[in-house]
Amino acid sequence: MSHNYKLISGGVTAPKGFLAAGVHCGIKKQKLDLAIIFSTAPAVGAGVFTTNKVKAAPLMLTMENLKQGAARAIIVNAGNANACTGDRGFSDAEEMVSLTAKFLGISHQEVIVSSTGVIGVPLPMDNVRQGIETAAAELKDDGGANAAKAIMTTDTFSKEITTSFQLAGKEITMGAMAKGSGMIHPNMATMLGFITTDANIEQEALQIAIKEATAQSFNMITVDGDTSTNDMVAIIANGEADNEKITLKSEYFGKFQQALNFLTVELAKLIAKDGEGATKLLEVQVKNARTIKDGRLAALAVAKSSLVKTAIFGEDANWGRILCAVGYSGAEFDPSKVDIAIGDEMMAIDGAGLAFDEERAKKILENKHVVIFIDLKDGDADATAWGC
Amino acid sequence: MSHNYKLISGGVTAPKGFLAAGVHCGIKKQKLDLAIIFSTAPAVGAGVFTTNKVKAAPLMLTMENLKQGAARAIIVNAGNANACTGDRGFSDAEEMVSLTAKFLGISHQEVIVSSTGVIGVPLPMDNVRQGIETAAAELKDDGGANAAKAIMTTDTFSKEITTSFQLAGKEITMGAMAKGSGMIHPNMATMLGFITTDANIEQEALQIAIKEATAQSFNMITVDGDTSTNDMVAIIANGEADNEKITLKSEYFGKFQQALNFLTVELAKLIAKDGEGATKLLEVQVKNARTIKDGRLAALAVAKSSLVKTAIFGEDANWGRILCAVGYSGAEFDPSKVDIAIGDEMMAIDGAGLAFDEERAKKILENKHVVIFIDLKDGDADATAWGC
Repeated sequence: MSHNYKLISGGVTAPKGFLAAGVHCGIKKQKLDLAIIFSTAPAVGAGVFTTNKVKAAPLMLTMENLKQGAARAIIVNAGNANACTGDRGFSDAEEMVSLTAKFLGISHQEVIVSSTGVIGVPLPMDNVRQGIETAAAELKDDGGANAAKAIMTTDTFSKEITTSFQLAGKEITMGAMAKGSGMIHPNMATMLGFITTDANIEQEALQIAIKEATAQSFNMITVDGDTSTNDMVAIIANGEADNEKITLKSEYFGKFQQALNFLTVELAKLIAKDGEGATKLLEVQVKNARTIKDGRLAALAVAKSSLVKTAIFGEDANWGRILCAVGYSGAEFDPSKVDIAIGDEMMAIDGAGLAFDEERAKKILENKHVVIFIDLKDGDADATAWGC
Repeated sequence: MSHNYKLISGGVTAPKGFLAAGVHCGIKKQKLDLAIIFSTAPAVGAGVFTTNKVKAAPLMLTMENLKQGAARAIIVNAGNANACTGDRGFSDAEEMVSLTAKFLGISHQEVIVSSTGVIGVPLPMDNVRQGIETAAAELKDDGGANAAKAIMTTDTFSKEITTSFQLAGKEITMGAMAKGSGMIHPNMATMLGFITTDANIEQEALQIAIKEATAQSFNMITVDGDTSTNDMVAIIANGEADNEKITLKSEYFGKFQQALNFLTVELAKLIAKDGEGATKLLEVQVKNARTIKDGRLAALAVAKSSLVKTAIFGEDANWGRILCAVGYSGAEFDPSKVDIAIGDEMMAIDGAGLAFDEERAKKILENKHVVIFIDLKDGDADATAWGC
């Protein structure tokens, strides 16, 4: 499926009409810590936000701004989450938005604002103010890489994915950057994803597409099992590819969705792979679940299970732990129908173990990329989750 | 609350009319690995079982046996969970039950059977058969301690709690043993609790009491976050204390429930404390939740949060992580009303941070027993969870 898309370079500045910058403003000691992404043309925006009941100030402001559907800029800082910061947090987020709007000559409502880093500490606004001014002045059409670096916290590498594809005779480009690391880390567990595209698409369709893409990508990796106060995925589409406008009813919507799914899954896999000590990517494919919800619950529980991870890491093919995790996942299924395979080695059929080749299974578990297949034989919904 | 109960010794053989034994039959290399608890008089039994959809064979058989309400014996082995063992697992569990019934001269339905240990491997039945015969022959009125040792897996110490109290002019004794360890461990995460009492109580009341006691004790500790295929709490009451029979409507039911709550909470705290590297007991008290369900969800999420644990362990008073965990717990609450204290140091009021004394907070976190108080100010339900 993913092989239909070519990977190109450029990140969020690869699509036509996008500029970006990543600067150091002093929230962090030395590293880049503030980024702006900007569309030179009017654009629509959409986003998906943490389900945590405690939402950081920048998220609440962005959710409000996006209600009117237009978005031309993303301002984001790393090193401080501006979460649990009370009234001061809201006025700081508002100032980030209004300064960005001022320097870029756009309206307040067209700005998406995001922060990531420590919780409960007010933003150092003098640094942030200066950072916004500098970043706005440094916007470039090849600034994607620096922007991607400027949103890193515990990440050990910056994450960009870029692809282009033909749609109704026009070339559409999508670029993306993300932050988040797959291993538990004390200070910050927030996951951010920012996507730009030159596709011409109506805002309503863009919102539905980003929600579905997030559900099958970022929501299917297991970063500490929690949702943070700052998790956000946002997309801006500026129509510069000049394609016939994609609507929910148009024949091209499915193709756009597929491309966005590909892009977000590749980003999610980069996040799952990142983190201190992560030596393997674990992929859990659940087949034939009763519903997509059951499939996703089952796949996530297995990818998240510390007992399963310990088995995989210890190269011990313990399929019982896999079945146990499906059992507590909350998914509806019949334990006596479940088949389990690790790689191409069948371990269990109809819920009972097979005499399998332990040496072969051990070889499969030595791979950097381990795939667990779980066939629930209970419906026709499939889901995939990733862990490390 | 807990101070009303005196702690005595004896475990499951402390109540009148109970015998027990713990023996080594060879499932494990050297350690005790099989236990029997036996009531010399007819008794009623009740139990609570894992919510995992995948239930080990001994659980399914015990659930069936307990339907008729009488129970006089518990047979349990450690070292092998008899889970995910297919048809063979069921016939092995049935044989454990029938052998126990035969050697004790009781009916098949009066036997509770339980196993804990590795998943997916058939029981070594020759050892188990010999073990049941030996244990039945070695039953003693001071056998509780050996029985408690024989159900350990990753536990670093055996767990017994015994108490007695006056009820309607009679002395009631309750004894209990449990296994489970608070830290993540690769091989086995099962939690077992077995309780004996000489109280005279009707089976229906006993079932309701054990369910409620489990909800506020074993279900409020965080053993790896998962429910295993073998989790079980069972209680046998033989009426040898000769008290007026406790029914759901009798004035003594509340007192019985309180005593059982005390006993199970103390056991749960022992489990939370156990495990390699566990240096602290974390207690999370949620006050004034909208419903008891909201309170329990919030308390558990905080006790389970790896970010909160890392802060406590690192003696870093980060209340933002606590609020964040309440936020994703699934509990209904209003973030702008939450007060948070660690020990007696207030950290946040109405969802916003206070300037607190960091040195004092650090001192509190140095304690072996750290208590987090969360006042949701949203109702009148309280709940407590424990972690390590």
